[in-house]
Amino acid sequence: MDKKKPLILVSNDDGITAPGIRSLVSVAKEFGEVVVVAPDSPQSGMGHAITINKPLRLDKSDYFGDEVLAYQCSGTPADCVKLALDKVLPRRPDLLVSGINHGSNSSVNVIYSGTMSAAMEGAIDGLQAVGFSLLDYSMDADFSAARDVARKVIANVLDHKLPADTLLNVNIPKLKTDELKGIKVCRQAKAKWVEEFDQREDPYGRNYFWLTGEFVNMDHGEDTDEWALKHGYASVVPVQFDLTAHHAMGTINNWDLNAEAE
Amino acid sequence: MDKKKPLILVSNDDGITAPGIRSLVSVAKEFGEVVVVAPDSPQSGMGHAITINKPLRLDKSDYFGDEVLAYQCSGTPADCVKLALDKVLPRRPDLLVSGINHGSNSSVNVIYSGTMSAAMEGAIDGLQAVGFSLLDYSMDADFSAARDVARKVIANVLDHKLPADTLLNVNIPKLKTDELKGIKVCRQAKAKWVEEFDQREDPYGRNYFWLTGEFVNMDHGEDTDEWALKHGYASVVPVQFDLTAHHAMGTINNWDLNAEAE
Repeated sequence: MDKKKPLILVSNDDGITAPGIRSLVSVAKEFGEVVVVAPDSPQSGMGHAITINKPLRLDKSDYFGDEVLAYQCSGTPADCVKLALDKVLPRRPDLLVSGINHGSNSSVNVIYSGTMSAAMEGAIDGLQAVGFSLLDYSMDADFSAARDVARKVIANVLDHKLPADTLLNVNIPKLKTDELKGIKVCRQAKAKWVEEFDQREDPYGRNYFWLTGEFVNMDHGEDTDEWALKHGYASVVPVQFDLTAHHAMGTINNWDLNAEAE
Repeated sequence: MDKKKPLILVSNDDGITAPGIRSLVSVAKEFGEVVVVAPDSPQSGMGHAITINKPLRLDKSDYFGDEVLAYQCSGTPADCVKLALDKVLPRRPDLLVSGINHGSNSSVNVIYSGTMSAAMEGAIDGLQAVGFSLLDYSMDADFSAARDVARKVIANVLDHKLPADTLLNVNIPKLKTDELKGIKVCRQAKAKWVEEFDQREDPYGRNYFWLTGEFVNMDHGEDTDEWALKHGYASVVPVQFDLTAHHAMGTINNWDLNAEAE
């Protein structure tokens, strides 16, 4: 008895023409029927933005050939997923994959990541969802090892199903397939960006600022995504969208929030 | 012996001219020296977006009078905080407050919220940080009760200090001060938006889509922010930026991620 072919929604934040999404579509096609709804232009750094003050455009695309129904959308990655669920997909998808991003979304980058926001949007809606990112910003990046990791992760997610209210943040180091040591389940490293804005003057004498920054890992744990990636492993971090700091509730419950301020 | 006057950074996502930030500045001034860096236009729904593909503008504003150093910035709420820390503030601030947002950021809305992204950006950098939101979208909203709540929360944060890597998401119901029952420490309710895009046709025969949606609370707990707000309380949710679903790691560690895919 054949199981029904899985329906897989693919999105990203680098835009529908980025090489990374082509790699992910090629892997997803091995597992089921693929539908793409992706931004019509790069959306990196968009975090979990949604578009509420202007309307969205959604245009059919033949970018992935006849086998893959594809649309490009004028909105953010989260918009793409919302539109796909409401207007494009014939039924609830069995899996949502986002990426493969050109550049890392490890550690605290998950917060700023459009790739992960597409996956999170799906997870909030109850879908199985995974975001993939390769630690190589180049448009000529070699996605072979990333495809191999994506294949293994997708096989496991379809097979085992993710725990409730959990999605995966998968990052792959910039290595050849035979150099990759394996795939490690990790926690998010405690790290931050230390900003230094590059201040310049325009031709009219007014200042403007470019965001630049240095990534600083403050976490010496060997169970983090940063450790895994630095040591030749792909990292898999289970991610939640309940942001409650449950461990802090006791402390704050002891404050005098209901006393009259002096 | 006088303590040094606290330095308080104020930002928001409704833009520097929104009534809500004026309310928050007026309360913050009771506690210390206030510096404002806020977006020059509304940024609602921007999530944790940052601006990496274009430069930012930062212009001095006299909007809050002589006592308050204020700048308007062309970027997102997270950009505002990054710029404030690198280019505006004379020293590390003792507190970052964001808002008061015109509209709820309770429950899963924390994910989409520019107000909370400003606070989270500060928290990632190690600052004491709180986001405030009033459940009233109107520009004529009555901020009296919200100011009272903000006063109590700010007093407590300055006094007790937040647990490490924790910020606060404070929401205030649309009630008069004497109707407010109190302030409750809560967890984030499990809820989601069910989207229905409003599809229209432009004068040229092409479709466009407006995002509309219905908020659905799937959480019957009486310890959630949704419960508190519905029952006349302001809600205080401690929020973390470690998104690791620690409870899911055991399960996923039992998967066959390193077996060869068939």
